[in-house]
Amino acid sequence: MTGARESVTARLAALARIGAQSHGIARPLFGAAEYEARALFASWARASNFTLVQDVAGNVFARREGRRDGVLRPPILIGSHLDTVNGGGAYDGAYGVVAALGVLEALDAAGAETTHPIEAVAWAGEEGSRFPLGCLGSGAYAGANPIAEIERLNATDGEPFVSAREGAFGLLRDVERRASFPKPAAYLEAHIEQGPLLENAAESLGVVTAIAGARRFRVEIAGERGHAGTLPMELRHDALCAAAEIVLALETAARSVGECVATVGYLTVEPNETNVVPGFVALRVDLRSVDDARIDALDRALHTACADVSRRRGVRAGIADLERRVAVPMDPRLRAALHETIATAGRHALDVPSGAGHDAMCLATITPTAMLFVPSAGGRSHAGDEYTSPEDLELGADMLVRATLHVDRLLSEGSLA
Amino acid sequence: MTGARESVTARLAALARIGAQSHGIARPLFGAAEYEARALFASWARASNFTLVQDVAGNVFARREGRRDGVLRPPILIGSHLDTVNGGGAYDGAYGVVAALGVLEALDAAGAETTHPIEAVAWAGEEGSRFPLGCLGSGAYAGANPIAEIERLNATDGEPFVSAREGAFGLLRDVERRASFPKPAAYLEAHIEQGPLLENAAESLGVVTAIAGARRFRVEIAGERGHAGTLPMELRHDALCAAAEIVLALETAARSVGECVATVGYLTVEPNETNVVPGFVALRVDLRSVDDARIDALDRALHTACADVSRRRGVRAGIADLERRVAVPMDPRLRAALHETIATAGRHALDVPSGAGHDAMCLATITPTAMLFVPSAGGRSHAGDEYTSPEDLELGADMLVRATLHVDRLLSEGSLA
Repeated sequence: MTGARESVTARLAALARIGAQSHGIARPLFGAAEYEARALFASWARASNFTLVQDVAGNVFARREGRRDGVLRPPILIGSHLDTVNGGGAYDGAYGVVAALGVLEALDAAGAETTHPIEAVAWAGEEGSRFPLGCLGSGAYAGANPIAEIERLNATDGEPFVSAREGAFGLLRDVERRASFPKPAAYLEAHIEQGPLLENAAESLGVVTAIAGARRFRVEIAGERGHAGTLPMELRHDALCAAAEIVLALETAARSVGECVATVGYLTVEPNETNVVPGFVALRVDLRSVDDARIDALDRALHTACADVSRRRGVRAGIADLERRVAVPMDPRLRAALHETIATAGRHALDVPSGAGHDAMCLATITPTAMLFVPSAGGRSHAGDEYTSPEDLELGADMLVRATLHVDRLLSEGSLA
Repeated sequence: MTGARESVTARLAALARIGAQSHGIARPLFGAAEYEARALFASWARASNFTLVQDVAGNVFARREGRRDGVLRPPILIGSHLDTVNGGGAYDGAYGVVAALGVLEALDAAGAETTHPIEAVAWAGEEGSRFPLGCLGSGAYAGANPIAEIERLNATDGEPFVSAREGAFGLLRDVERRASFPKPAAYLEAHIEQGPLLENAAESLGVVTAIAGARRFRVEIAGERGHAGTLPMELRHDALCAAAEIVLALETAARSVGECVATVGYLTVEPNETNVVPGFVALRVDLRSVDDARIDALDRALHTACADVSRRRGVRAGIADLERRVAVPMDPRLRAALHETIATAGRHALDVPSGAGHDAMCLATITPTAMLFVPSAGGRSHAGDEYTSPEDLELGADMLVRATLHVDRLLSEGSLA
């Protein structure tokens, strides 16, 4: 089914050179490298004679028209993002964009006509890579983050969003821009798993069941600072010992609740001196599950642990909400369509949850949405040594072509209405 | 017994203004504030007509001569230090220097003749406040840190020791300097307790039994970094969870061994991001006891905990020695003399260990040494709210005068030989 075009692998290698650092890739939104990546995507699309358009959130669309029968139909959108975290890998986001463009080219090569127009999209700023907002472009598109609010954001380096967007590395210089965010007929996204489930199951393809909900908290533990040499153990209110109990209580809770993860990734100690009993610890808690009830259980375990530690140790462990995102199930009809497509091609896919967030979370609020995963070596992601084999990348891209045709048929039959 | 002189309390208040910051006092060695404090000490000594001399380590001595019978006798040294940690209090070190000078003045006021010369000393850089070496001046004096080695040190800001010593805030401009470190007949040091034992026992005076030994380690825990949303709990090698177990194992060990303290005051996480399972933690362990066997027990508990956590969690917890200082018992004859002096004055003193290090640790290696403690409110020290009541400060200073006369008699009788 794949047509004559540059391979996904070759294009990912070309993108990986843009923003390459000693330890991974850095392509923050509206930086020189990220501009160059968007421009390269546009140049590939232009070379294949697809229509290009960008919107005021920085999203770029390559469009292949559908049936020319005078009926205006909304497009099937396929895509992902080109920005990276600082020190990211070559596949996260980029794979889904390259694979989406490959769908348009494969349809051309096969001379296939689709009922609906197909658009390959590179969403802007999925990683929250320069402005303090994840899924910036897809959130604007789906209306979760109104563009007027985004236009009031400042970058972490202080530059206003509008100044960056209109600057040298903002919107593409030679691409038409539009102010609207037209509703698509469906959304598909291919992505690396960023976790170990496919690799551990020796599967090359995954159909995402749901994108995990996430809840984040800041915990501040106020104990009492003291001299490490002179304060007897029985008189201490050591904030780090209290924090250690909370860290371990969360780990135990996550193991016992099951099908969820709890992480303390960030922890700082004050004054952080060898000879001072810690008086204060701040830490951040990240809880995730595709089942919101399991996040509730972890949430309760956190509150119980903080109350218990405060009482027993004479410290004050306070909890502040940082972020709350409910689990987003993928569309069951599109999930079934992906499985059917894959089975028809003689392959198999595993149902897997997505622990990480994706642009698909936003699109799912406005249109039927599904995601296709390929394996991540060792489950590694957001790191320079992120890796997926060329075979898996090409297989996933091929399945995405077939799935697009399948979804186009379902839409034409009214099965997704 | 106290003679006509400025009160200890008034002098401590004057010193507290030198280097005062918003949160406590900063007087690092050979800085402007520390120079000013030394100069103020010298001006007080000069006003009372005591001989001044300084040595090449930065120590300053005020001397009151003993019996003028043509016999050269070594002096009884009394003192402490004038430098502070960054954000220190008004009493740590300064009290012992001011009280020592008060001994000389009280003897003058009483017209008392001592057999031995008495010297009040301000030791340089006890806190390791600018050069990376604690007890810099007293260590040089006692030979623990050869002056040739000290002269090769660089300050934390990069300035070489010799350049700082010969600079604007180095040795006092108008005081004779000597290159020798003459052996004293005995050493006494008054100090705030920096711990809560005296206050909790409602005692105003403490006689130090021993200065605790200390052992310090750096522990590095290498786990495996991962995505907080996608890495299942059962596949994690979380360096922070491993560190939490070590922190709590040490606390449990210290409580069970007894008469010792174990502290993790310093801990850092890498990469320290909310959404990344910690791949690496470094922490520092501080173990102290006046009983070296108890430190041995804590040392074993640390090694056991690291080995156990490494095995169970699939991480590598490595231990590196940072510092090792054996416990230093105070001279039993001088301890008895302090108790006798205090009892004769109708007061009482508690035997207490010193969890903190002091210049007396170094002096104890070359001469009979003892320490007198006064209470610290709430056990607080190395903080701006360090506090000891004027009554306790003056009581301790008065006992130091009486103890000096007592020790001079013992030396004359040959009882300390």
